[in-house]
Amino acid sequence: MFRKKHPKAGARPGTLVISHASPPPVIRVMEYTPESVKEHEIDDVESLRRFLQADAKVWIDVQGFGDEKVIRAIGELFGLHPLALEDVVNVPQRPKAEAYDKHLLWITRMATMVDHGTLQTEQVSMVLGANYLLTFQEMYGDVLDPVRERIRVGKGRPIRNSGHDYLAYAVIDAIIDGYYPILETFGETMEEFENEIVDNPDSSLLQKIHHIKREMLALRRAVWPQREALNKLIRDECEFVTENVRTYLRDVYDHCIQIIDVVETYRELAGGLMDVYLSSIGNRQNEVMKVLTIMASIFIPLTFLAGIYGMNFDNMPELHSAWGYPMLLTIMFAVGVGMTFYFKRKGWLGGQRSRPEE
Amino acid sequence: MFRKKHPKAGARPGTLVISHASPPPVIRVMEYTPESVKEHEIDDVESLRRFLQADAKVWIDVQGFGDEKVIRAIGELFGLHPLALEDVVNVPQRPKAEAYDKHLLWITRMATMVDHGTLQTEQVSMVLGANYLLTFQEMYGDVLDPVRERIRVGKGRPIRNSGHDYLAYAVIDAIIDGYYPILETFGETMEEFENEIVDNPDSSLLQKIHHIKREMLALRRAVWPQREALNKLIRDECEFVTENVRTYLRDVYDHCIQIIDVVETYRELAGGLMDVYLSSIGNRQNEVMKVLTIMASIFIPLTFLAGIYGMNFDNMPELHSAWGYPMLLTIMFAVGVGMTFYFKRKGWLGGQRSRPEE
Amino acid sequence: MFRKKHPKAGARPGTLVISHASPPPVIRVMEYTPESVKEHEIDDVESLRRFLQADAKVWIDVQGFGDEKVIRAIGELFGLHPLALEDVVNVPQRPKAEAYDKHLLWITRMATMVDHGTLQTEQVSMVLGANYLLTFQEMYGDVLDPVRERIRVGKGRPIRNSGHDYLAYAVIDAIIDGYYPILETFGETMEEFENEIVDNPDSSLLQKIHHIKREMLALRRAVWPQREALNKLIRDECEFVTENVRTYLRDVYDHCIQIIDVVETYRELAGGLMDVYLSSIGNRQNEVMKVLTIMASIFIPLTFLAGIYGMNFDNMPELHSAWGYPMLLTIMFAVGVGMTFYFKRKGWLGGQRSRPEE
Amino acid sequence: MFRKKHPKAGARPGTLVISHASPPPVIRVMEYTPESVKEHEIDDVESLRRFLQADAKVWIDVQGFGDEKVIRAIGELFGLHPLALEDVVNVPQRPKAEAYDKHLLWITRMATMVDHGTLQTEQVSMVLGANYLLTFQEMYGDVLDPVRERIRVGKGRPIRNSGHDYLAYAVIDAIIDGYYPILETFGETMEEFENEIVDNPDSSLLQKIHHIKREMLALRRAVWPQREALNKLIRDECEFVTENVRTYLRDVYDHCIQIIDVVETYRELAGGLMDVYLSSIGNRQNEVMKVLTIMASIFIPLTFLAGIYGMNFDNMPELHSAWGYPMLLTIMFAVGVGMTFYFKRKGWLGGQRSRPEE
Amino acid sequence: MFRKKHPKAGARPGTLVISHASPPPVIRVMEYTPESVKEHEIDDVESLRRFLQADAKVWIDVQGFGDEKVIRAIGELFGLHPLALEDVVNVPQRPKAEAYDKHLLWITRMATMVDHGTLQTEQVSMVLGANYLLTFQEMYGDVLDPVRERIRVGKGRPIRNSGHDYLAYAVIDAIIDGYYPILETFGETMEEFENEIVDNPDSSLLQKIHHIKREMLALRRAVWPQREALNKLIRDECEFVTENVRTYLRDVYDHCIQIIDVVETYRELAGGLMDVYLSSIGNRQNEVMKVLTIMASIFIPLTFLAGIYGMNFDNMPELHSAWGYPMLLTIMFAVGVGMTFYFKRKGWLGGQRSRPEE
Repeated sequence: MFRKKHPKAGARPGTLVISHASPPPVIRVMEYTPESVKEHEIDDVESLRRFLQADAKVWIDVQGFGDEKVIRAIGELFGLHPLALEDVVNVPQRPKAEAYDKHLLWITRMATMVDHGTLQTEQVSMVLGANYLLTFQEMYGDVLDPVRERIRVGKGRPIRNSGHDYLAYAVIDAIIDGYYPILETFGETMEEFENEIVDNPDSSLLQKIHHIKREMLALRRAVWPQREALNKLIRDECEFVTENVRTYLRDVYDHCIQIIDVVETYRELAGGLMDVYLSSIGNRQNEVMKVLTIMASIFIPLTFLAGIYGMNFDNMPELHSAWGYPMLLTIMFAVGVGMTFYFKRKGWLGGQRSRPEE
Repeated sequence: MFRKKHPKAGARPGTLVISHASPPPVIRVMEYTPESVKEHEIDDVESLRRFLQADAKVWIDVQGFGDEKVIRAIGELFGLHPLALEDVVNVPQRPKAEAYDKHLLWITRMATMVDHGTLQTEQVSMVLGANYLLTFQEMYGDVLDPVRERIRVGKGRPIRNSGHDYLAYAVIDAIIDGYYPILETFGETMEEFENEIVDNPDSSLLQKIHHIKREMLALRRAVWPQREALNKLIRDECEFVTENVRTYLRDVYDHCIQIIDVVETYRELAGGLMDVYLSSIGNRQNEVMKVLTIMASIFIPLTFLAGIYGMNFDNMPELHSAWGYPMLLTIMFAVGVGMTFYFKRKGWLGGQRSRPEE
Repeated sequence: MFRKKHPKAGARPGTLVISHASPPPVIRVMEYTPESVKEHEIDDVESLRRFLQADAKVWIDVQGFGDEKVIRAIGELFGLHPLALEDVVNVPQRPKAEAYDKHLLWITRMATMVDHGTLQTEQVSMVLGANYLLTFQEMYGDVLDPVRERIRVGKGRPIRNSGHDYLAYAVIDAIIDGYYPILETFGETMEEFENEIVDNPDSSLLQKIHHIKREMLALRRAVWPQREALNKLIRDECEFVTENVRTYLRDVYDHCIQIIDVVETYRELAGGLMDVYLSSIGNRQNEVMKVLTIMASIFIPLTFLAGIYGMNFDNMPELHSAWGYPMLLTIMFAVGVGMTFYFKRKGWLGGQRSRPEE
Repeated sequence: MFRKKHPKAGARPGTLVISHASPPPVIRVMEYTPESVKEHEIDDVESLRRFLQADAKVWIDVQGFGDEKVIRAIGELFGLHPLALEDVVNVPQRPKAEAYDKHLLWITRMATMVDHGTLQTEQVSMVLGANYLLTFQEMYGDVLDPVRERIRVGKGRPIRNSGHDYLAYAVIDAIIDGYYPILETFGETMEEFENEIVDNPDSSLLQKIHHIKREMLALRRAVWPQREALNKLIRDECEFVTENVRTYLRDVYDHCIQIIDVVETYRELAGGLMDVYLSSIGNRQNEVMKVLTIMASIFIPLTFLAGIYGMNFDNMPELHSAWGYPMLLTIMFAVGVGMTFYFKRKGWLGGQRSRPEE
Repeated sequence: MFRKKHPKAGARPGTLVISHASPPPVIRVMEYTPESVKEHEIDDVESLRRFLQADAKVWIDVQGFGDEKVIRAIGELFGLHPLALEDVVNVPQRPKAEAYDKHLLWITRMATMVDHGTLQTEQVSMVLGANYLLTFQEMYGDVLDPVRERIRVGKGRPIRNSGHDYLAYAVIDAIIDGYYPILETFGETMEEFENEIVDNPDSSLLQKIHHIKREMLALRRAVWPQREALNKLIRDECEFVTENVRTYLRDVYDHCIQIIDVVETYRELAGGLMDVYLSSIGNRQNEVMKVLTIMASIFIPLTFLAGIYGMNFDNMPELHSAWGYPMLLTIMFAVGVGMTFYFKRKGWLGGQRSRPEE
C-alpha cells in the first residue's frame, strides 16, 4: 500500500534511505546535436563532468539507486541541494516541480500495468539544468524508449533542434500518455463486471470491484499532484522552461485533467456497481427464501393432515369409511394445488425474469 | 466507456490517430454575405484556399476524419498548430477554448439520443479565424441543420450581418440547446421509475437506475468543461470574439449551468431511488418470511399434537375415550385460531397497505 | 420534474416558446406618488406608454404569457433585449440578475405549497428601469398582495417615498419570506416522520421521505441561485440599485442563506431517517425470524420424539411399560421448558423494549 | 426543529414578531469605571438615557422580548436601524456581525444542555456602540455570570480598564467556551455507545445515534456562522473593535474552528457507528438463522426416519427384526452427531467470539 | 475522544487549567555554539535568565505542566502573552503558528503509537524568540532524541552553525517524520484486514475497521492544521524564520501533504472494506439459508410421504401390496435425488468458491 523510504524521524535532512529492492545504478547518456547522436553507458561518475561542458545537448538517465556513493557523487557533480537529492531517492515523493537556483527539480510518477489488472507506479525524477537533463528512475525499464528513438531518428525534428526543456516535455508527455492504455484496461474490466454482475454476482466480484476502487485511488494520487506541478510550470515564470514549451505543457496538462476526470468517473461507477451487487445479494436471498417458504407452506399442512389420520384413537369414523382415504388424498391434492396457485398469483413462482431456468 | 484515440505513449506531438469508425471526410462550405448565400461541396482541399481571400463570410464544415492526408492538408492550409490538429482528430478531448496566434480553437461536445435512453456524444471542434469558421465533426450528421437554415433564409437577420464569432455562437447555442430534450427524456424515465418502484420493484429496474447514473456522469463530463470554456471566452479579452457576441455567450453559459444543475439533481434522485429500491427488497423479504413463519408456527405445533396421539404406547387412556378424537380436533382448531389471532394482532396478517390482494 | 420551455435546438436567439398552460396576459398598473395611489387594469399595451413619461412611480405587473403578440409588444415598448425577453418567457430560467444598458433583468423564483406537502415554484421576472418596475409572472396569483396593500395604505412610509429599487426589494423580500412557512411545514412533516418511524415503520414512509428529499432538492435549486443574484447586486456597483436599498438587500441575502442552511439540514436529516428506516426493517426481520426459530426449535425435537414412539417395531419395550407414556410426556415438557428457558437467556423472548405486547 | 419568528411574507421591513414564549423584558445595567461598579435594574426605558451620557462604561442587558413597546423604545433610544431591531427580535437569525453607522450589530448563539443529552440554543444579540454595550437575550438566564463576576471583582484587571469592545469579547468568549462542556458530554455519550454497540445493539441505540447526528447538525449550524462573523471582525477594519481586542478575538476564532473540527469528527464517527450498528443487525440475523438451520437440519432427517418406520405396510421386515429398533436408534444417533460435527466444522457451533455463553 | 483542558466558560483570558495527568515540569537546557555543547537540567526558573543573555544558542525544553507556578514564571521570564501561555497549557489546541511581537508561537502535535494499533498524540508548543527556542511538552518522553544527538555530534554541521529557526525546523521535521512509521503500521493492519475479510469475516473485524477510521480522523485532525501553519510560515514574511530555513520548511510541508494524502486514501479504503464486510455478511446469510432450504426441501416432502403411509385408514390397498414398501422407498430416493439435482443446477450445492470444504 504505502511503503515510503523515509529516514528515521529526527534524522539529518538529506539522509538517503535506499530501498533494498533497488538495483545498482546504470547511467546512460544521450549526447545529441541537430546533426548527430551519440549514446554512452557510463561506469564512472567523474566522466560525466565532460558532458556538462559540451556544446551538445545531454540527457543523463540514471536507473537504480542501489549504490549510495554513486548517487551522492552525481548529486555533488550536479550541485543538487541535499533536500532535492533526498526527494529523488527516498521514494515515493508526491509529484511536484520545485525551482532551485541552478536547476528545476521535477518529480513525476510513471505507471505501468503488471499482469492484467495490477497497477504499478514508479517515481521518475527530472533535474532540468541549463545544459543538461538528468533523470532518475528507481528500477530498470521505463516507457521512454519511443522518446529515445525519436531522438535517434529525429534529424530536423523539434526534438533535436529544441532545448532541454523540450526534451523534458517529451519525457513527461510519454509518462502521462502511458496512463491512457491503463485507463482503457480498467474501463474494459469494468464493462465486463457490469455484464457479470447480472449473470453471476458472486463474492469474488466484490473483491475485484474493491480492487479497482483501490487502484483508482492510487491513480488519482499519482496524477492529481502532477496536474498541480504542470500548472505551476505553465503559470509561473521560470527560466528553465521557455514560452514555446509551455504551450506543449498546456497540452500535457489537459491530458492530466482528462485522466483525472476518467478516474473520478470510474470511481463513481465502481461505487454504483457495489450498490448493484449489494442489492443482487438481497434479491438472491429473497429467491432462496421463497423456495423454502413455498416448499414448507405446501408440505407442512399436508403432513399435518397425514398426521391426523395416523393417530390411534379408537373412535375415528373416517378411518373406517371406504371413501376416507381417497377423499383425504383429494383434499391434500386440492390444498397443494391451492397453495401453488396462491404463490403463483403472488408472483413468487415462475415468470421471474432474472432466472429463466426455473 | 472511455475509448480515446491516443497515439502510443512517447509519440511525437501532433501524431494523428484516426478511428477506424470515422468515415472519409466530406467538406461543405457555406459562403454568405448579407445579400446572398452559396453552398459548395468540396473535393479538393486546395480549392478551399480561394474562400480564405473572399470578402464573404465562410463556414467550412468537415465531417469525418477517415483520410489523414486530407486532414493534414486542411491543417496546413489554415495554419493549425500541430497540437491543435491533434486535439481535433484524437477524440475525445476535454471541451476547452484555447487561443492561438491566428485562430481560436474551441472544442465542444454534441449529444444525441440513440434509441430511447442511450446517450451518444460526439466531439465538434471549431476553429475560429479572422475570416472563416472551420468546424470538424467525427461522424456525418449533426444538430446544426437549423443553423444552416437560418443562414439560408436569414436575410437581414443578425446571422447574415454579423461576424464569424456570431456564427460560432449560433453553433454552440444549437449544441447546448440539444441537451435539453435529452434531459427531458431522462426526466420522464426517472418519473416512470419512481412509479414502477412502488408497484413492481424488480432487479431489472436496478440495472436501469445504474444506467441512468452512468449516463448522468457522461453528461456532466460533457457539459461541465464547456461551462469553463464559455466562462473563459466571456471573461478573457480575446480578439476573435466581439463584445456583442459575448452577451450572447453569457446566455449559453446560463444554459450550461442550468443543465449541470439538472444533471446533479437527477444524480441525487437516482441515488435516492437506489435507497428506495434497496429497502423495498428488505420489505419483500420480510413479507416472504412472515408467510413462512405464520405457516410454520400454526402447523408445526398441530403436527406435534397429532404425532403424540400417533404413538403406540399401550397405556394411553385418551385413545380409548369416545371424546378423545373430537376433543383433540377442537383443541387443534383452538390452537390454530389462537395463532392466527396472535399474528393478526402483531399486524403480520391482512391490513398490509402495500399488498392489498393478500 | 424538469420541463423547460426551450426553443428547438438551433433556433434564433429570442425565439419565445409559450407554455400552453399559461393564461392570456393580464396587465395591472400601480401608479403612485407619496400622496396618491392609482390602480389600472390595461388592455392595450400601447396605453402603457404614457406611464413611462409620468412623474409617478409605476409598477406594471404582467400575469400570464398566453399571447405572444402582447408579450412582444411589451418587450419592444420597454426596449428589452431579445435574450432578456427569452429569459422572461421560456421558463424555467435559473434565477439571476443581469444588467443591461437601460434596465436590470432580475429573475427570481416564487414558491407556494399546494395541498399539504407538495411544493410548486413559479418564475417571477423583474425588469427594473429608470422610471418603472415591470414584473412578469407565468400564472395568475402570487404572494405579493401584502406589498400592494402596503403601497395603498403606506402614506409617509418608505415604500411610497423611495424609488423603484425599494419596490423591487419589497417584491423580492416577500418572495423570499414566502419560503419560511414552507420550510416550517416540511419541518413539521419530518418531526412526524421521526415519531412514526419508531411506532410504525412501513414502506409508505420511505416514499414520503424520498418525496421530501426531492422537494428539498427543488428548494435548493430555487434558492441557491437567488443568493448569488443578490450577492451580485449587493457587491457590484449598479446604477439601478441605490446604496440605501443595498442595506435592505443584505437582509434578504441573510434570509436566503438561512433558508439554504435549513434546507441542507433537512436533507441530511432525511438521509439519517432513511438509515433509521433501513435498520428498522432489519430489526423487524430479526423479530420475525426469532418467532420462527423459537417455534421450530421447540416443536421439531418434540415431534421427532413423538415420531419415535409412533414407529411400529415389534420390539419396543418402552411402549409396553405402564410408565412409558407419562414419562415421555414429562420428558417432552422438560425439553419444551428447557428450550424456552434457553431462548429467554439469549434475550429472544420477552423483555424486548420495542414490542412490549409480546 | 426550525421555528423562526418571521413576519408574514410581504410585511414591512422592521416588523417585529415576538414569540409567545418570550417573557417580559428585564433590563439590567452594569455601570463601571476602573474604580467602581454599580448595578441597576431598570423599569423605565427612558431612564437608560442618562447612562449614554455617563463617563463610566455601561453594559445594558435586556432579557426577554415579551413587550414590543419596550423593545421598540430601546431601539429608538439607541438609534437602531429597523432591520437591526428585526434581527434582534425575530429569532433565530443566522449569527453575523454587521457594521451600521453608529454601532456594530453582532448576533451570536449561546448553547446550553437541558437534561443530559438535549441541546438548547438561544440567540444573544450584541449592539456595540461608542459608549455602551447592549445585549439582548430571548430568555432569562445565561452563561454570562462569570463575566459579571469578573467585572465586580476585577479591579485593576483589563476587564475594568479596557473599552466596551473588550467587554464584548468577554461575552463572546464565555458563549463560545460554553460549547466545550457540551462537546464533552456528547463525546462521553458516543464512547458509551461504542461500548454498548458491541454488548447490546438494540434499536433504541439507533434512535440515539440519530439524535446525536441531529444535535451535531444543530451545533454546526450554530457555530459555523459565528466563525465567519469573527473572521470578518478580525480582518476588516472597524472602528468599534480595537487592534488589541482583535488579538483576543483571534483566540476565540481558534476555539470556534476547534469546535467545528470536533463536531465534524463526531458526525463522521456517528456515521461510522451507524454502519457498525447495521452490520451488527446482520450478524444477529445470521446467528438466529444458524440456530434455526442447525435445529431443523438435525431433526428433520431424524423425524423422516421415524416417519418411515411409523408406516403401516404389511411387508416391512425391519419392523419384525429384534435388532431393528436399537439399530435405528444407533443410526439416528450417528446422523445427529454427524450433523453436529458438520456444523461445528463450518464454525456455526461454539467458538463464536461474540456470544461465549452458547 | 476529546478532552480539552478548558477553563470554565467566562473565565479570564489566560486562565490555566492543568491536567491532573501532567507530571511536574522538568526543564532541560541545551546550550551550544559551533564549537561546544553544554546540557543542563534546571530546577529554578530564575536561573534560566542567564541563558537569555548568552551568546550561545539555547534550546529550553520543558516537559510536564504539573506546577502552575513554574509555568507562570517561565511565561513571565520570556514575556509570553497570556493567551499564548493559555494555548501552551490548555491542551489540546489546534496546531497553528502565530506571530507575537517578540516571539513566534508554534503549536504542533506529535504522534506516537502505544501498543500495536492505538494512536496517541501530544501537543508540543514551540516559542521561537530572537535568542532562544523554548519547547513545551505535556508529558515526559518524545521523538526528539535524534535531534539532540545531532546537536551533540554535529560539529561543523548546519544544526550547530545555523540559527534557532533551523533548530525549530529540525524539531518539526522530527515530529512530522514521526507520522510515517505510524502510517505504515496502519497500512499493514489494513492489508491484514483485506486478507482476513475474505477468509474469516467476523464481527470483531468490523470493530477494528471502525477503530482505524477513528484513528484516521484523529490523524487528519492532527496533521491538517499543521499543514496550514507551515504554509503560513513559508508564505508570510516573518522575522523569526530566515529564507534559507523556509526552503527546509517547504520540504516538511510536502511531507504533511503526503501524510494527509495517505490518511485520506486509508479512510476511503476503510470505507470500502466496510462495504465488503457488509456484503460478506449478506453472502454468509445466503449460505446459511441455502443449507436450511436444501435440508427442508428434501426432507419435508419425504416426511409427508411417510406420513401418508402411517395413516390408519382401513382401506389403503398399497399397504397390503408386497411391493408397496420397496416401491415407496424407491420413489422417496428418486425425490431426494431429484431435489438434490435441482439445487445443484441452481448452483446452490458444491462449486462454491468461497467455501471449498462443503
